[in-house]
Amino acid sequence: MDTDMHELTRELHHKNDSKIVMVVADGLGGLPLEPGGLTELETAKTPYLDALAARGVQGLSIPVKPGIAPGSGPGHLGLFGYDPLKYVIGRGALEATGIGFELGPNDVAIRGNFCTLDSAGRITDRRAGRISSEESKPLAIRLRDVKIPGVEVFVDPVKEYRFVVVLRGQGLGGNLHDTDPQTTGVPPLEPAASKPGSERTAEVVKVFVAQARKLLASEKKANGVTLRGFSTKPALPSYEEVYGLRAAAIAVYPMYKGLARLVGMTIVGQAQTLAEQIAVLKENWASYDFFFLHFKYTDSTGEDGNFTNKVKRIEELDAAMPGITALNPTVLIVTGDHSTPSFLKSHSWHPVPTLLVSPCCRFDGGKKFSESAALRGGLGQIEAKYLMPLALANAGRLGKFGA
Amino acid sequence: MDTDMHELTRELHHKNDSKIVMVVADGLGGLPLEPGGLTELETAKTPYLDALAARGVQGLSIPVKPGIAPGSGPGHLGLFGYDPLKYVIGRGALEATGIGFELGPNDVAIRGNFCTLDSAGRITDRRAGRISSEESKPLAIRLRDVKIPGVEVFVDPVKEYRFVVVLRGQGLGGNLHDTDPQTTGVPPLEPAASKPGSERTAEVVKVFVAQARKLLASEKKANGVTLRGFSTKPALPSYEEVYGLRAAAIAVYPMYKGLARLVGMTIVGQAQTLAEQIAVLKENWASYDFFFLHFKYTDSTGEDGNFTNKVKRIEELDAAMPGITALNPTVLIVTGDHSTPSFLKSHSWHPVPTLLVSPCCRFDGGKKFSESAALRGGLGQIEAKYLMPLALANAGRLGKFGA
Repeated sequence: MDTDMHELTRELHHKNDSKIVMVVADGLGGLPLEPGGLTELETAKTPYLDALAARGVQGLSIPVKPGIAPGSGPGHLGLFGYDPLKYVIGRGALEATGIGFELGPNDVAIRGNFCTLDSAGRITDRRAGRISSEESKPLAIRLRDVKIPGVEVFVDPVKEYRFVVVLRGQGLGGNLHDTDPQTTGVPPLEPAASKPGSERTAEVVKVFVAQARKLLASEKKANGVTLRGFSTKPALPSYEEVYGLRAAAIAVYPMYKGLARLVGMTIVGQAQTLAEQIAVLKENWASYDFFFLHFKYTDSTGEDGNFTNKVKRIEELDAAMPGITALNPTVLIVTGDHSTPSFLKSHSWHPVPTLLVSPCCRFDGGKKFSESAALRGGLGQIEAKYLMPLALANAGRLGKFGA
Repeated sequence: MDTDMHELTRELHHKNDSKIVMVVADGLGGLPLEPGGLTELETAKTPYLDALAARGVQGLSIPVKPGIAPGSGPGHLGLFGYDPLKYVIGRGALEATGIGFELGPNDVAIRGNFCTLDSAGRITDRRAGRISSEESKPLAIRLRDVKIPGVEVFVDPVKEYRFVVVLRGQGLGGNLHDTDPQTTGVPPLEPAASKPGSERTAEVVKVFVAQARKLLASEKKANGVTLRGFSTKPALPSYEEVYGLRAAAIAVYPMYKGLARLVGMTIVGQAQTLAEQIAVLKENWASYDFFFLHFKYTDSTGEDGNFTNKVKRIEELDAAMPGITALNPTVLIVTGDHSTPSFLKSHSWHPVPTLLVSPCCRFDGGKKFSESAALRGGLGQIEAKYLMPLALANAGRLGKFGA
């Protein structure tokens, strides 16, 4: 395992009145549509970001390691300075986080799939014919009727055949094998502990599954469930502990609020638009040291493969920058959790253009914020987990290592 | 220890119809003969490589770590994606590999040196007067007459005073101290185990040495042996396991075939020239996913200190590129296992110019394949072990890490 930067930041950080803003344009990095062409960011007209580039330093952020495309979880953990290979959020915990479920210390989170069973209890369709969200939502809600002595049961619909189960109770463990056999023609696997300490949870899950079968018995399309990704709340040290920062998150979507909450950020405001996010930032300016501002649409347009709309979304973000710079943050970072080139219609491994502005950054002469300028920028190509130490240093919040 | 990328590639890889070609120009990187001059690669006329650079991405590959010049073993392991500091091939095993000896699971490989002993058995010359290969070859072959009950003995000449011994038998261990005392005036050291489990091997080696002494007794120049680098076949996970790739190696020299075999590549063809190697590539195109094509002469001309000939060899390689691109590989990588500047006449630590071409690489605007363009290239300066993850990602063979 690589160096854990928190061992250094924990020891070296101190507090001052500086303000750090990290703007995460989800999936910011892109690709040209043909060799020699321009990326989305290079195509966009971004006068405000370019002006920041002229007094800042650029570079490319490697989300995890070269060649590795991250999901939102590891992508954001990296930006938050948590080694994404060291801190792994279980699938169930991430799914719960993604729908805004606030996990507690006695919770086991589980990804549920509706499936179809024949009369002998064998799986005929592992995804219940990709049942629509409209059809599956009432079924998920019906599962809330499961009653298990000593255990609180939460069930929430997610999308199509997927739902989330959270079991809350003393002494529950998160180490269980998936019950999805990954094939059809056989029954779901019996719940079983994969490590000591989760045996009771396996018994609880058996009860859940049996009652779920009864509650769904009359359903033709989705009369069974499989359960996967059993996991407890990940043990992430807080921003306060590792950086000495009072941190606020300003995000629209539950997933990003959830990820921020896992590292101890406070979710502020209920903004639904970028303008509202900027307003929330202003309102909370005095109360926090660090602000994470998440902008989703550079990713979603990339996932759609819509180059033109991603360009527009980047321009929308650019237009919001004066609202941030007007607050005069000590350190302003603009980056992304990964690239989402519209050419690929998916998250990718390509390093992410990243801009850092502070009075003591070493200006690199960049004139425009872009992949190609970032490639020649002063930050070089660095793993995302180094951005937070750089932010603290530029904010004058990190002492000297060694005498 | 750094992150083992195989933990990620093992989990994330999947299969598709893509083809990856890795061309290794041994010792490719170079140096100018004087400050401000051009390197061998920069001097060479390379229209085909330059055209690839225009639609690809360049960078510098650090074989092991900054400042570390590797041998062929760690140099290639890095390119193959095996951390060369984690996976160490024993000297004996590498020597056996280098002469094309296919090590089995019950083998102990040993580097042998002929030496000269006085009448009291004390070493007078540790290298037998650097005896010529012509003189030493029959002596090595004579050692095949050693007979040890329960153990198969293989002896092969290597070069000058060097030969290889392989002992094959159940329960042999590879942990023995060298018998070379590293000085003259004393007898060779008694064979001795350095770790439990190799005691029987030490007894077997004593028998070998005693019989060798008898077989060589009448030789004036080389009447004794010392044995070094005891080692078993290194336990390297296979390309199939860590990448899901059916891999083929197209190499002329035994060392490179041997290294490829150690990671589970299939040695295809019996090419002796680059043109024949390209023909073998074409013949085997449908049967494999990954092709390692090794070109030796950029290294040997560098070792000779022959700048002009290294330039010519690079031009020879360039002329062969259309034969590769005609096959339309999904990902084409051109790199080297290390630099061999003719200025230094040896392997060096200088990062190696490396070119990656794929439809979704992030073109970096390079116009010529060269050290100076690679320095400003989009791949940055990365350790060689990251090239395989990048190759897989560019081939669409790596899934997302985390949700």
